[in-house]
Amino acid sequence: MIYLTRVEEFSAAHRLHLPDQDEAGNAELFGECSNPRGHGHNYKLEVTIRGAIPPDTGMLLDLKRMGEIIDRVIIRQVDHKHLNFDVPFLAGKNPTAENLAVAFWNLLADQFPGAQLHELRIFETERSYITYRGEA
Amino acid sequence: MIYLTRVEEFSAAHRLHLPDQDEAGNAELFGECSNPRGHGHNYKLEVTIRGAIPPDTGMLLDLKRMGEIIDRVIIRQVDHKHLNFDVPFLAGKNPTAENLAVAFWNLLADQFPGAQLHELRIFETERSYITYRGEA
Amino acid sequence: MIYLTRVEEFSAAHRLHLPDQDEAGNAELFGECSNPRGHGHNYKLEVTIRGAIPPDTGMLLDLKRMGEIIDRVIIRQVDHKHLNFDVPFLAGKNPTAENLAVAFWNLLADQFPGAQLHELRIFETERSYITYRGEA
Amino acid sequence: MIYLTRVEEFSAAHRLHLPDQDEAGNAELFGECSNPRGHGHNYKLEVTIRGAIPPDTGMLLDLKRMGEIIDRVIIRQVDHKHLNFDVPFLAGKNPTAENLAVAFWNLLADQFPGAQLHELRIFETERSYITYRGEA
Amino acid sequence: MIYLTRVEEFSAAHRLHLPDQDEAGNAELFGECSNPRGHGHNYKLEVTIRGAIPPDTGMLLDLKRMGEIIDRVIIRQVDHKHLNFDVPFLAGKNPTAENLAVAFWNLLADQFPGAQLHELRIFETERSYITYRGEA
Amino acid sequence: MIYLTRVEEFSAAHRLHLPDQDEAGNAELFGECSNPRGHGHNYKLEVTIRGAIPPDTGMLLDLKRMGEIIDRVIIRQVDHKHLNFDVPFLAGKNPTAENLAVAFWNLLADQFPGAQLHELRIFETERSYITYRGEA
Repeated sequence: MIYLTRVEEFSAAHRLHLPDQDEAGNAELFGECSNPRGHGHNYKLEVTIRGAIPPDTGMLLDLKRMGEIIDRVIIRQVDHKHLNFDVPFLAGKNPTAENLAVAFWNLLADQFPGAQLHELRIFETERSYITYRGEA
Repeated sequence: MIYLTRVEEFSAAHRLHLPDQDEAGNAELFGECSNPRGHGHNYKLEVTIRGAIPPDTGMLLDLKRMGEIIDRVIIRQVDHKHLNFDVPFLAGKNPTAENLAVAFWNLLADQFPGAQLHELRIFETERSYITYRGEA
Repeated sequence: MIYLTRVEEFSAAHRLHLPDQDEAGNAELFGECSNPRGHGHNYKLEVTIRGAIPPDTGMLLDLKRMGEIIDRVIIRQVDHKHLNFDVPFLAGKNPTAENLAVAFWNLLADQFPGAQLHELRIFETERSYITYRGEA
Repeated sequence: MIYLTRVEEFSAAHRLHLPDQDEAGNAELFGECSNPRGHGHNYKLEVTIRGAIPPDTGMLLDLKRMGEIIDRVIIRQVDHKHLNFDVPFLAGKNPTAENLAVAFWNLLADQFPGAQLHELRIFETERSYITYRGEA
Repeated sequence: MIYLTRVEEFSAAHRLHLPDQDEAGNAELFGECSNPRGHGHNYKLEVTIRGAIPPDTGMLLDLKRMGEIIDRVIIRQVDHKHLNFDVPFLAGKNPTAENLAVAFWNLLADQFPGAQLHELRIFETERSYITYRGEA
Repeated sequence: MIYLTRVEEFSAAHRLHLPDQDEAGNAELFGECSNPRGHGHNYKLEVTIRGAIPPDTGMLLDLKRMGEIIDRVIIRQVDHKHLNFDVPFLAGKNPTAENLAVAFWNLLADQFPGAQLHELRIFETERSYITYRGEA
């Protein structure tokens, strides 16, 4: 059993906001992250898959192929986008890093041939990140 | 003569956009950076001042005081903001990193007691940055 | 179940030293780390909490609030201090990163509303770090 | 139970290549990584050991001693080498990061007095890494 | 006058070697860097251009276009290659970082529309780099 | 003309303190940096030399030899030391990064065969650094 991680990045705007709260309520819940026009981040996404090492190639999954899957399924949908408006699979969700992680997991699970999705890590800044392993 | 640099960060949304161009024109000039709803970055700002080392203290400027100046003059104005809408000193400017650098320079020059502003560096991502020294 | 990590830093001096050993004994055990006057580090502290994502906010704990807790409980006690002399909760302990991790854990456990402390990571340098999960 | 990690680096050349495949087969399996003359990386190796904190010293293993073990057993064998030709313990293996991790594990297990090898992480680039815990 | 920097990476093998020296001479000059089979690095290349900010767009050069130029002129020629054998414009040169910098400069000068090449920086590792500004 | 930079690190304790000031005066000048027992940092030192590329070797100075010079002249004197007490060439100086830079410059100038010392950069933390070029 071995774990292979690939790191990708995307730049996006977002605003933390609950539609059933007024501005004061959102400000109390999310502080400056609820600023109406939004702010943004260079998000870093680490995708880890796991599996047995194939004895012939010694390679769990070709990194280029792994990158193409992550790019097609996730990065193209969110890079240079406003996460509150431009991403269909996030519609109606508050775009916290926690909610991004679960949404990305649901899209990436079962996408990697010969390997299982093991962990997602999303850095909102260098100083804060979310880790999700699909655990209930 | 010595140079002292302090590094700060801010998270903001922006959109590259010229109002005298239509959507197609903006898309041709700025590509995905012209996406109407905007995207965002964790900007890193490096401020460098220069001066003679005071022979008594051996310290050009106290780092805490330097940080407070940068925070008051720049960071509080741009952090968690949308640069196209929320920042009075950027009004009417296309918020490229180049234009940010010149605008920040004009605000920071002459703010540091006993030292001169020498250089600003703005990282839009880890892989691209602008350097400005106030040169005509 | 999701994991949220916040990274903080502090600058401190320390000396590895056992009072029941003489200088030669300490030098043999700890090498240059036992230098009598002490040396120092920019420590990096990563605090990870875990919990279920609240379905309404989608946010395990507000990062600003998490930062304030870590700052009040740990950072203000150790930043710009000499760990052998200035920190009551370390009194009588050899200030290895291992002992720091256990002491920090005991102070931080049960401090995070709606979440459990999951893991502490202390980087003494970029090239060495301790991980502790409260395991016996 | 505590975990101690030390980070080391080595610079090496390698080529992904299966001898029972012709050039076209290798190119299909490994793309540009099968380039006949090889390419290279600054590999980063993170070694994590685990154990109980000795109550007297508060130190699982002296970092200097830990570094000397990793240097003697691994780094001197692979640094500034071509992994396909110059490393006896890799002879006959395709030098993927996956295969390196298993080979390093077998050499490092049982080398650390008073502690158990817990995890190896090998970064081929800043954007891709393998994690191995000796799991079957 | 403003400076715009873009950072790219390539992974390559090389060997420091002078053909008019025997193995002992090369070993004395270049140490382990003269190992016959070669070793390798993840090189980081920083390209800085300078120019006046165009008053209409506020953008010296589109980063995507700048990246495509660097990719076409340099990265595709050296990435996943052995610098002693596979790169026509390095033929007959000892592939030190110093010689790479001059060769890259000669290829990149005059490639950037509306801007001048100002500086190249080549990191062979995180701990050593060459800077070249085309100065005689 | 080319510039070669090598990065080294040292861990040291220091206290900002002027002996002709009382505790209150030092606290006003240096804040928490004047804490009597001292604090510490992982300092990063970047040494840049410049010179013409020797046409035969293509190498300004062997990196290993450059590292040995920096290690002998600087690192061994300051690593794992308390800069206020343990370093003869800093005796009587307030150990600010500014004063360290000048003292290191005076020791390193003329130490590099075939090259001139061009610039020193001292990072006290990742977020603050001093640059010195020997300018009066």
